[in-house]
Parts: sequence; structure tokens; C-alpha cells
Amino acid sequence: MAQLIADRRDVDFALHEQMEAGELSKNKKFAEFDKKTIDLIVSEARNLAIKEILPTQVPGDEGCRFEDGKVMVPESFHKINNLYKEGEWLAMTDDPKWGGQGMPKLVSLAANEYFHGANAAFMLYHSLSHGAAKLIEEFGTDQQKEQVLKKMYSGQWSGTMLLTEPEAGSDLGALTTSAKRNDDGTYSITGSKIFISGGEQNMVENIIHPTLARIEGAPEGSRGISLFMVPKYRIQDDGSLGEFNDVVCTGIEEKMGLHGNATCSLTLGGKSGCIGTLLGQENKGLQAMFRMMNEARQFVGLEGFAVSTTAYLYALNYARERVQSKNIMKPNEGSVPIIQHPDVRRQLMIMKAYVEGMRSLIYYTGRCYDRMALADSDEEKKRIGGIIEVLTPIVKGYVSDRALDVTSHAVQVYGGYGYIKEYPVEQLMRDCRIFMIYEGTNGIQAMDMLGRKLGMNNGKTFMDFLGEIRTSINNAKKVSGISELTQTVDDVFTRLSEVALTLGKKAMSDKVEHAYAFAHPFLEVVGDLTMAWMLLWRATVAAPKLEKLVGSLNPDDVTAKVMKNKDAAFYDGQLKTARYFIKNILPITMGKLNAIEETDGAAVEIREMSFGSK
Amino acid sequence: MAQLIADRRDVDFALHEQMEAGELSKNKKFAEFDKKTIDLIVSEARNLAIKEILPTQVPGDEGCRFEDGKVMVPESFHKINNLYKEGEWLAMTDDPKWGGQGMPKLVSLAANEYFHGANAAFMLYHSLSHGAAKLIEEFGTDQQKEQVLKKMYSGQWSGTMLLTEPEAGSDLGALTTSAKRNDDGTYSITGSKIFISGGEQNMVENIIHPTLARIEGAPEGSRGISLFMVPKYRIQDDGSLGEFNDVVCTGIEEKMGLHGNATCSLTLGGKSGCIGTLLGQENKGLQAMFRMMNEARQFVGLEGFAVSTTAYLYALNYARERVQSKNIMKPNEGSVPIIQHPDVRRQLMIMKAYVEGMRSLIYYTGRCYDRMALADSDEEKKRIGGIIEVLTPIVKGYVSDRALDVTSHAVQVYGGYGYIKEYPVEQLMRDCRIFMIYEGTNGIQAMDMLGRKLGMNNGKTFMDFLGEIRTSINNAKKVSGISELTQTVDDVFTRLSEVALTLGKKAMSDKVEHAYAFAHPFLEVVGDLTMAWMLLWRATVAAPKLEKLVGSLNPDDVTAKVMKNKDAAFYDGQLKTARYFIKNILPITMGKLNAIEETDGAAVEIREMSFGSK
Repeated sequence: MAQLIADRRDVDFALHEQMEAGELSKNKKFAEFDKKTIDLIVSEARNLAIKEILPTQVPGDEGCRFEDGKVMVPESFHKINNLYKEGEWLAMTDDPKWGGQGMPKLVSLAANEYFHGANAAFMLYHSLSHGAAKLIEEFGTDQQKEQVLKKMYSGQWSGTMLLTEPEAGSDLGALTTSAKRNDDGTYSITGSKIFISGGEQNMVENIIHPTLARIEGAPEGSRGISLFMVPKYRIQDDGSLGEFNDVVCTGIEEKMGLHGNATCSLTLGGKSGCIGTLLGQENKGLQAMFRMMNEARQFVGLEGFAVSTTAYLYALNYARERVQSKNIMKPNEGSVPIIQHPDVRRQLMIMKAYVEGMRSLIYYTGRCYDRMALADSDEEKKRIGGIIEVLTPIVKGYVSDRALDVTSHAVQVYGGYGYIKEYPVEQLMRDCRIFMIYEGTNGIQAMDMLGRKLGMNNGKTFMDFLGEIRTSINNAKKVSGISELTQTVDDVFTRLSEVALTLGKKAMSDKVEHAYAFAHPFLEVVGDLTMAWMLLWRATVAAPKLEKLVGSLNPDDVTAKVMKNKDAAFYDGQLKTARYFIKNILPITMGKLNAIEETDGAAVEIREMSFGSK
Repeated sequence: MAQLIADRRDVDFALHEQMEAGELSKNKKFAEFDKKTIDLIVSEARNLAIKEILPTQVPGDEGCRFEDGKVMVPESFHKINNLYKEGEWLAMTDDPKWGGQGMPKLVSLAANEYFHGANAAFMLYHSLSHGAAKLIEEFGTDQQKEQVLKKMYSGQWSGTMLLTEPEAGSDLGALTTSAKRNDDGTYSITGSKIFISGGEQNMVENIIHPTLARIEGAPEGSRGISLFMVPKYRIQDDGSLGEFNDVVCTGIEEKMGLHGNATCSLTLGGKSGCIGTLLGQENKGLQAMFRMMNEARQFVGLEGFAVSTTAYLYALNYARERVQSKNIMKPNEGSVPIIQHPDVRRQLMIMKAYVEGMRSLIYYTGRCYDRMALADSDEEKKRIGGIIEVLTPIVKGYVSDRALDVTSHAVQVYGGYGYIKEYPVEQLMRDCRIFMIYEGTNGIQAMDMLGRKLGMNNGKTFMDFLGEIRTSINNAKKVSGISELTQTVDDVFTRLSEVALTLGKKAMSDKVEHAYAFAHPFLEVVGDLTMAWMLLWRATVAAPKLEKLVGSLNPDDVTAKVMKNKDAAFYDGQLKTARYFIKNILPITMGKLNAIEETDGAAVEIREMSFGSK
């Protein structure tokens, strides 16, 4: 049977052969998670995702209903929500104290890849719940934690993020929701929020809204914003639900896609009855929220990736089955499956390269979290934490940009069928377009990379990131059969290191606007190099295994073996994919680097009037 | 008031200052179309488009209804259809004998830009009608022409193209619809067609379907396909409507976008009552259809462009009005319109460069048609006809690819608002995704460029195309202030000329699959160079005018003048846009050229199994 959502062989390769997940169990903290257990977890997630969740993807596109302040999620979501809760999948990586499984992050990502790929709209409810719970776990008082954490991590209650207001989108410092301190230490919250994913829904008993608001008298701008825990229903001392907390859903948005996830407008305290409790310190709300934001951004990248892998496998299966036109080398024979046509192969290769590169990148980020948890010095913790900081805008920004490309290629491989709702790929393209926007537009991600991550710790953090790539390149140099590829990656690495320095300096000079006009191109080249790194790393693992299976890396011998042996086919696919990316995409990266180095100012210097007459 | 659909200043620039449309009236054929008349035509089209058609765009997204074989277009389409018919806009360029206006093609495109940008789904009905009428005008008998042409060109009846079948999409040679000759010389048609835009609709009295079918006993494959004229209602000798011709609409597709245009499945002769007449010669149907296909492909490019210009102006207006975050150079001042942020400017610049480059390209193609009509030798006609052949895959493929980019940038500039249906841009992105697919996917366009156009007339045709670019570069070299830009375009021109030769040779060697895996990248670089050509040409026109207005091209003097003078602002915008494209995009083009020259075969050599396990 055709693979769906994710190619299990590649998941296993990335998990075990590339990231060596089984090694984690050598540490006491992860002792239960040996290879066998990991494989079992992935298999269970895969089964649930393919058998139960994936069939809800298309029906979910019909969207949510809004009636009298209530939001009804698509009917099919209730059953899978129960199965997801029963499987205790939400708190895979969390502290057993709060009901978590204490699983390595790396392993959880392989499971999550299947879930998100099966239905991103459904999973978004859970991603946000997890992020909200994590925020309370980190900043909440013991009482707040006792009140909500177990219920949130079990999926009995859900969580959201109440940030955006009509006049405060990218600029949260402009928000106007207010908090007035009551005599009992609680706060009365008043304001309106928009674009709240899962702000109201009928799969849960209660919803916990971490909410940004300004305490009366607090400073203007971002320095005066505090974070509050605002439940939909108040929580009584015994943990049971009290009265309605005046968080009213006033409507849901009609969107391009991701219809199964309700995007809500909420009014808080419209009848003066919305009570919240301070989460963390006064006026430190933005900092706290940004801690959660990193996780949220990585989840967005995961969603973009998961939708991409689903789209890739649909397109691959379709290309193997759809018969149309003759093979260009065999004009006298009959029509063939379109996977034989060079332009279809080109598109499948682009998709494969990005999907597999994204998979490795996302798993690698997970492994960094696990390495950080196991690090035996603060210095090492800090080093790895820094690498995660650099990876975050790549995972969120670069991956979601490429996810649009991958899903669009899937539509194109289907031809006319790709554009109609009878086939699944047009929905995936519509669904994934939002990932370039939410949790900080990709323009914001690019500014984060250039303005914060590049200069963090006087540049040491970015150097640590480059150091990881350097290690992989050096390892690749020891492997036979991939030296030409390694050299090209090394050349781009060197060029990018130079250009990063040049651009970083400009960003701190009076040419700051010029530099920031190249923030997004800079994020792109860092992303390209990261993909090349991941694919070269894969080739480094695959080449010796292929050589061992075949007895040589001679192309004819390899081809003969590939025809008969699944493993040889897989490993050879790794070498071809790395070669494709390095030979086809990295030359373009070099071109982008040349443009960035020149940092031409046309976009900055053009007068506003010159963009178009009024 | 903010400009909508297209910036009139830029339309006028491209029409008159770049393409010198007014010169056309020096020829007898176009004597009535002097500058004043042209401007009046554009103004009328613009008024109708902005005031009447544009307001139907969003309501049209609700789509068509299908009931009992009938298709009801969106209600708002009926009024604009009457206005469009009354204005006699369909047959702008056609022979007055059949009710046409005999207008230069160049001028019609400026008018059409407004119409298509106002509502692409509505205009598609008319584009296809025009194409069908043109086909009958070219290949029909006198009787066929007398029967239908005036009614079609006036919009009283509509036309379609019946090509695609479930098993015959890109490969039309596989179609199975059959035609059986009757004693009276007519044919009984039997078969099923899918993806028929406007195959059934309720704005017209009758629909004429040019239909591809195979006469019983004809050869297999594409050599046995004939073209027929099949009306929805039979036409009596006196021209009045006869009985229903057994062309039954069995359903309409649910699509990603372009919902206002009905995509129909049709069954012909299900009750053995479908009669057609041969259009052109037996077994020569595909050749005839491909004559129409060139026009259809150019219309698709026009639609992609028109949706892009609409999206650009929406994004520009939004960026001028939306206040969010501080100016990076003025951190102590208040929030500013987002057009002041470098990453928003970057995106607006990309959009502006493509939109204006596309406008010039499309007008230029129109001017080629007009030059061809006025040419005084067959040789010159053939030369220009060849250039149009090369331009067609660029106009269809490259433009529609970029249209997705442009509309996606528009969504991004709007941020979260871009993703919701309350704002107009998400629809534009969904609408324009189909342009990459229909009338031959862009993969087919790329194969057309590499396989047919590059080698046409032993390469002379492509050389003629390059010769036009060379002329523009040489003209630019004479203009002060743009020499650096000119040199970069010249470098890319030279490199592309070399790479085209290399790739063309490979396409005729045993590396044909390798070459075709680079057909789409090759179309991209030809498209990039074409954009650079058009923008450099614009700069060549603008620079002397700016210099005259300012007294110098010194940046400080220019900036001072631009602040006060609309024309100076416009011309300086032309220089900045050319610079942006040449400094930011052409380096990437160079990278693509390097990859094409290497023609790495990973995508071709990878075994099918290696794409993913089954």
C-alpha cells in the first residue's frame, strides 16, 4: 500500500541513522526510551494518524459553525479528539508530575509529524493548548499550576494565546486591553482580541486564555504589558468549574484555509465580569509570552513541514499512478505514469529534498532540546540553547515559506485535478499559507535572525550554529563518494560566513534600513545552507551503507542493486537528493549571497510616491 | 483617491512612452486610433472596470450553482455582462465585418488589463468565447461563419473549448470522443469532456463548442483528431435556435478559486442527439486547436498579470494606510504606516517590478501583433510571428508563475488580514493558482520553449528574439545614468545565449531527459531576462525625462524634485525598479544559469523506488 503522510523508512532513517535517537536511552533521564520503545511510539502515532485522523482532514475543511457565541468544530473532530486524549499524546515530553510522558523531544516530533500531517487544523488546538500549559508551568504560581496543568496536559481543558488586537498585530506594544487590580489580588480584564485560534470551541470543558493586557497606570508600549491567566469558566477552590468568566466569542473569521480551526474574536469583560490572575511579574508579560513564542514558532514550522510531507506523498503516489503521455525516450511505446516525465521528476525532487531536509532540521532541533536537557554544564546548556535560538526563525520562517512551494508543486503535479476539491492537495496549499503569517510573519522572523540572533552574545551564538555545520562538513570530507558535494557546501558555508559579517555590520551602521531590506533574503540563504547541511549529513550516513550493500559506489553497480534492494534504493535516493539540492539550489543561493553582499538600496531609497500614483 | 486595478500613470507610460501606441495611427489600418482616442478607450474601460465590474469580484467568489443540468452564474454577473456587451468590448481587435472594432491589439490589452483585473472569473467566459470565435473565423466555412460569428463577437452567444477528457489532459492524443459521419455531411458526436470552463452558463442564449473528436476509422493518437463545431442548441437555416443538441452538463467542479467561472463536465450525445459540423480538415483538429491555443495562452498570461496588478495596488494602498510599529530609523517617534518598514518595501518592490515588467511584456506582445499586421514583407511578418512564438510560453508560463508570487506577497503585506475573506487578496491568490495549470501546465510551456521554440527555424527564431533584447541593450548604452544596470543585463544576456546553446544541444543528444529536467529552469531564466529587458527599456525612456525635469541625475537633486513633482516621482520610480530587479533578481538568474549549464542529472537518474518506499 502507498505510504501516507510520511515515509516511515525516512522517518526511521532520520530518527535512528541520522539523529541516533536510540542513544538517548543511555542516559538515566530517558532510560525507558530505547529503540524498540521509540519505534512502538512512532508506530502507534502513525496508526492513529493514518487510520483515524487523516480521514477527518477533508471533512474538516467545511469549517466551524458559529452560533450565539458558541463555536462548533467539525463533527468528525470529536471522535479523534477523544482518541488523541486517550492516547495521552498531548504531553509526550512533559513532566510526569503534571501527567506528561517525559519523552525525548526528538521522539515526540516524529509522532507529531504524523498527527500534524494528518490534520493540521485539528492539531493546532492542541499545539496552542500545550504552549499555554507550558507558559503556566513556567510562570504560574503553585496554585495556578495545581488548578489547571493536569487538566490542560490531559486535553480535558484547552489553552490559547490572547495577543493580537485590531491595532496591535506585529506591534504588540500597542495593545489596549486593560487590567484593573481588585482588592483580592485578582484583576478585572477589559478589551477585545482578534485572530484567536481556538479562542472558543466545543471539544473541551474549559479554556484557559493566557492574555496580554496593560495594568492601569502601567508604562506605555511594550514595557507596560503584563500577562494574565484568564479562564473561560472561573475555577473554584475545589477545582470544579464556576461561573462564566465573561469571555465572549463575537465571531469567527472566514479564511483561505485551515477552516477546521476556529479563528475567534473575543470580548473580555464586556459585562465587567472577566477576572484574571497575574501570570509571572507585572509588566513582564511580553518577555514571558516570548518564551512561549519560541515553542509556538517551532510548532508552526512543524505544521508547515507536516503538511509538506503529506503533500509530497500524495503527489508521489499520484505521479506513480497517473498515466499520461509517452516517455520522451520511448516515443514508440504507449503512455506511461507521469513520474517518468523529467519535469514531474524535477518537481518531485524539489519536494523530496525540502521535505527530507525539513524533517532532519526539525528532528535536529528536537535533539538540541534533548541535548540541552542532558548537558552536564551550564556553558553547554547555554551553547545549545543559543543554537535553538538561531534555528527557531529558520524552522518557522524558512520552513513555512518552503511549505507553500512544496504544496504548490503538489497541486502542479496533479495538474487540473490539483485545483479541485475532489483531490486533497489544494486544501493543503490553502491550509499552509497561514504558517507564513502567524506567530510572527516571516518578515518578523527575518528581522529576528538579522537583528537578534546574528549578534547574540557578540556573535558567538551564530558562530556556534555555524560550528555545528562545520563539524558536519568535516565529517563528510572523510566519506568517499561525496567529496564534490561536500566542497560545494563548504564554498557556500564560507561565502555565507563572510556575507553574514558584512550584513551584520551594515545593520549596526547608518545603513540599517538597507540591511533590513535584506533580512528576508538573508534568512533564505541561511535556510538554504541549513537544508544543504541536513542533506549532506544524510548523504554522509547513507554513502558508506550503500557502498557496503553494493560493494562499490560505481553507478552501474549501484543501479543494478537499487533495482533489487529496498535499502539500496533508499540510500541511493539520499545521495541523489543531496546532489539535486546542492547542484540545483546552492548555485541560486550563491546568487542570493552576491545580491546580499551588494545590499543595493533601491527598495529603501525609492520615495513612497514613486510606488504608484494616488 | 487610491488607484485600483492598475496605476493609470503606468499604463499610460507603457502604452505611449514605452510602446509608442500613438504612432500606430500613422498607418492607414489604424488611422482612427490616435493618442486621444486610445486614451478615451482606456478611460472608458477603466471606468466600467472600477465602477461596475470590480464590485462583483468578491460576490463572484460565492460561485456558480448547478441544478438539473443548468448552471447559474453569480447573480451580479448578469448586469456587468450586459454592460460589457453594450460597450462592444469583446471584439475590440476584430474585423468590422463580424462586428469587431478593428482596434490595435496593443490598445485592447490596456483595456483588457482593467477588465481582467476587475474580475478574472467573469472575463474568462469572454476570453474563451473570443478564442472560439477566432477559431471559427479562421477555419470555418462561410456558412459556419455566417451562422455564429456576429452573435459570438457581440456576446449574444458564447464559446468554449472542448478538449480535456478524464484520460486525456496534457496528452490530447489519447482522447476517445468519437464522431460518426451522417449522410447529410454532419457528424454525430459521442463522448464526455471535463474541465470545460463556461461549458454551461445562463448569461447567453446559445453556446458554441469547438470540440475535439475522432472520426470513426481515423488513425490513433494525435494524427486522427478532428475539430467540430458543436452548438448547445442547433442553429436553423434562418439563424434562429433549433432544438437542444444533447450537450448535457453533468456537474461543475468545486475548486480552490475562480469560483465565478463554471468548470463543467459535459456529456455529448448521451441520447444520440448531438450533431456537429467539421471545422477545418479531417484529422487536422489538433493543429487548428493549437492556433487558438496561442491566443488562449496569452489570455492566461494576461489574467495572471491583471490579477497581479490588482493585488499590488491593494497591497500598496494597505501599506500606505496601515499603521503598525515604529520606523526603524526613528525609534523615539510613534508608529508609522507599514510602507516605511524595509521588509514591506522589499515586498512592494518585488511586486512592482514584476507587475510593471509583465505589463510591458504583455503590451509588447500586443505591439508585435500590430507590427505583424502592418509589416510590408512576408519575411518581416514571419520574423515577428516567430518572436510571438517565443514570447507565448513566457507570457503564459513565467507570468502565471510570478502571479502566484505577487499575490502571495500581497497576502503577506496584509499580514493576518491577508488570510481572511474580509479582505480581497486571499481570493486573488486562490484565483490565480489555476493559471499555472490551464491551457497547458507550465511544465508543458517549458517543454514548448526548450523543445519547439529554441530550435524553431534552426534557431533563427530564438536569435530574432534575442536580437530584440540586444537592440534594447544597445539603446540603453547611449543613455546616461543607467550604464551599470545595462552592463549587468548585458552580462546575463551573454551568459544566457551561451547556456541556451548548450542546453539546446543536450536536448538533441542522448541526454535529452537531463535537458528536459531543466526545461522549467530555462523558461525561468528566459523570463527573468525578459523582465530585466522590459525594466531596462523603461529606465531608458525614464532617465532622460527625469534628467530634464531635475536638471541632473544627482541623487540629492533627484530626491528634492521627487518630493514635489509627480512626474519626477514616477520616472525615478522607474529607475529604482529597474535597479531593484537587476541588482536583486539577476544575480539569482546567474546562479540558475550556472545550474542549467551543469545540467546535473540527479532528478532523472534517481530510480522510481528511491523517491519513497511503497
